[in-house]
Amino acid sequence: MTQRLVAGLEPPYYTVVFTSVLPGSPEGYAETAARMNELVQDVPGFLGSDSARSPGGIGITVAYFRDTEGLDAWRRNAEHQAAQRHGREHWYESYSVHVAKVERSYGFDRG
Amino acid sequence: MTQRLVAGLEPPYYTVVFTSVLPGSPEGYAETAARMNELVQDVPGFLGSDSARSPGGIGITVAYFRDTEGLDAWRRNAEHQAAQRHGREHWYESYSVHVAKVERSYGFDRG
Repeated sequence: MTQRLVAGLEPPYYTVVFTSVLPGSPEGYAETAARMNELVQDVPGFLGSDSARSPGGIGITVAYFRDTEGLDAWRRNAEHQAAQRHGREHWYESYSVHVAKVERSYGFDRG
Repeated sequence: MTQRLVAGLEPPYYTVVFTSVLPGSPEGYAETAARMNELVQDVPGFLGSDSARSPGGIGITVAYFRDTEGLDAWRRNAEHQAAQRHGREHWYESYSVHVAKVERSYGFDRG
């Protein structure tokens, strides 16, 4: 697991906040999540992502894109769409997606 | 821990994405996090928040506000500012804040 956060991006950029409730660790989920993380790297304008999941609880992934073209390309990706469909049918109790334009950002690093 | 996600908000609204790296479970952190969660409920236009933390890893909190006035009130809150300062001095390895305007949102609920 990486401990490096996405940081230092210059606004404006876009973010997709994906929150989800997943009961336990369903079969195939981790492999699909890893594959999606690999696939999104090739989307033009993809800037990075951060993920966290409380054990047995809520998971949050935040992905960052330079522009709406990148967002749209990722949303339309056929393998991504198939994974979402499989997630609704087999994995998720619930999820929410918030697509937003980042107007301001800042950070802190002890290092 | 709640398993209910914030859902069904009508865009436009604002979100503050707070990602952080916290080494272990430092003393006083959980109490301060609970207090901040209590305090933010009183901010006009606060719509809710979702949180997740991978054990020993990255934490993400996403808070939602109806307008920029709510964002500003929360940012200027004196007790919140003191907690942030204490967090920089004693707790966080790093953090990032992304303030964004939500343009589109949707969700799924099995229930």
